[in-house]
Amino acid sequence: MDGKELAALLRAQDRILILTHKRPDGDTTGCAAGLCLALRQLGKQAWVLPNEDITPIFAPYLEGLLLPAETEPAFVVSVDIAGRSLFTPAGQVWLERGIDLAIDHHPSYEGFAKESWVEPGRAACGELILELAQALGPMTPEIATPLYVAIATDTGCFAYSNTTPATHRAAALLMETGIDTATLNKRHFRTKSWKRIQLECSLLQELELHDGGRVALAAISLALMDRLSATSADLEDVASLVGQVEGVETAVTIKEQRDGSCKLSVRTSGGLNANKVCALLGGGGHAAASGCMITGSIETAKNTILEAIHTVQAQS
Amino acid sequence: MDGKELAALLRAQDRILILTHKRPDGDTTGCAAGLCLALRQLGKQAWVLPNEDITPIFAPYLEGLLLPAETEPAFVVSVDIAGRSLFTPAGQVWLERGIDLAIDHHPSYEGFAKESWVEPGRAACGELILELAQALGPMTPEIATPLYVAIATDTGCFAYSNTTPATHRAAALLMETGIDTATLNKRHFRTKSWKRIQLECSLLQELELHDGGRVALAAISLALMDRLSATSADLEDVASLVGQVEGVETAVTIKEQRDGSCKLSVRTSGGLNANKVCALLGGGGHAAASGCMITGSIETAKNTILEAIHTVQAQS
Repeated sequence: MDGKELAALLRAQDRILILTHKRPDGDTTGCAAGLCLALRQLGKQAWVLPNEDITPIFAPYLEGLLLPAETEPAFVVSVDIAGRSLFTPAGQVWLERGIDLAIDHHPSYEGFAKESWVEPGRAACGELILELAQALGPMTPEIATPLYVAIATDTGCFAYSNTTPATHRAAALLMETGIDTATLNKRHFRTKSWKRIQLECSLLQELELHDGGRVALAAISLALMDRLSATSADLEDVASLVGQVEGVETAVTIKEQRDGSCKLSVRTSGGLNANKVCALLGGGGHAAASGCMITGSIETAKNTILEAIHTVQAQS
Repeated sequence: MDGKELAALLRAQDRILILTHKRPDGDTTGCAAGLCLALRQLGKQAWVLPNEDITPIFAPYLEGLLLPAETEPAFVVSVDIAGRSLFTPAGQVWLERGIDLAIDHHPSYEGFAKESWVEPGRAACGELILELAQALGPMTPEIATPLYVAIATDTGCFAYSNTTPATHRAAALLMETGIDTATLNKRHFRTKSWKRIQLECSLLQELELHDGGRVALAAISLALMDRLSATSADLEDVASLVGQVEGVETAVTIKEQRDGSCKLSVRTSGGLNANKVCALLGGGGHAAASGCMITGSIETAKNTILEAIHTVQAQS
């Protein structure tokens, strides 16, 4: 399926509800807003299902688009939702009643919808919604704004390895509507809360370097979280921070949990298989980014993960 | 003049020397490397003049391209050099003998060359060299790599307000040669030295907030620089850091000098005219980014700049 076929399918529908995923990010939120506005431009009734987890940074993009109470949609679309477990509680109700169309870019898409358009090679689901919106009608600054946010946030402002030439061409096209991308970039990439700054500095200044600086262990204690009144939202993407330290190839971020365990993120850039390291401790993920849980204190977690790293290093 | 006309001009030349600016950044270095390689692809002799200020992060792009001693070029091109004072000491010799062609994107270009191609609307001089290289011959990964670095570094990885649709289209075109932009982005945007981390954390943790958090004063003392064995290279773009703190509209970075004075950078995003503030103290610059010198201690500098900010605020 492509944008044109999907546009034909949607032109035949009305009263369309759009669903976003749990802990919504810029991509799912921006896709929902962009698609909703593109459908409304055609004169259709379209809404986004309210998402209880929405954060203040993304909520504004959905203003005026949310499904009012007591409204019955006729066609349900999910955007950027890869699996059944990623529906919000309110979304689960619609999953049980049946999703008509899924638009996604995750290779792990679970095939839960009647129709689907899934392209795993795309950096952001926003690239697909852009194609669809173009097939539906003229691109406007209102539609372009959330789609730019979708694409820019999912690629770390065009820095991550998922960025392709198509990503840049999509950005160019969206900018040509005259949207103020500099302000969007400042909002999403060049603004840090005071709490976040304190958190990053504590994390980095107490970093432990091992193996000649190639392995870094960073811990976030409950005491630190409490002192800063920080929540898990303040820890967004914190694991990628430790990997930025010059010379570090294996970056481990340890988050102390209230149940006496620690949650670990392992990011590697030097060839070590993070999935093998975490698998030794009952966890897993990808070769360059994996996670696991360790029962015990931060100190225990540090010793255990270091041992697992050395075991995998010795095998390879 | 455009890329095609310039290509015709260069096709008629040989033994071409390319000059970069003082304290070379990614744009001037990437342009020099890209142009040199595009000329060599035509079978021409071309070199880049060694730049004494080159830093380890940019030096690799010029490997194998530098002008050997005792070599006499016949045609001299400057890239990304806006003014006479921006030539390196070695470059000054060539400025006196005459620059044949200047390629630049600065509105302040001083017209020192016989021929010039200057487009101030371009985010990076790299966008112009890309057009020129395309007109000269096929685009290769070798040419595309330094040009991508030129464009990406001058736009803060496509985040700054100078980024245009043409910038993104240029990036798409360069990526299509198959270059590994993820590794380039990691190198230039997602790697921090241990010294830099310490410096940023000291700066941010000792930030003084005024006027309800809208004005931030950050100081870099000589004691801190000495403790970290930091040099001015470690302070690269540090002024933009303070402006990232949530809620801050006026960000002042104060660098203590060995002569008993302080060097101040003022960045504003909330409408206050930084140029007017700095002009009160004998400095100047742009409305959103200005600088000045204040004689005295960091404490004196803080009080003086705060007073100047309040004076300009009262006027507007």
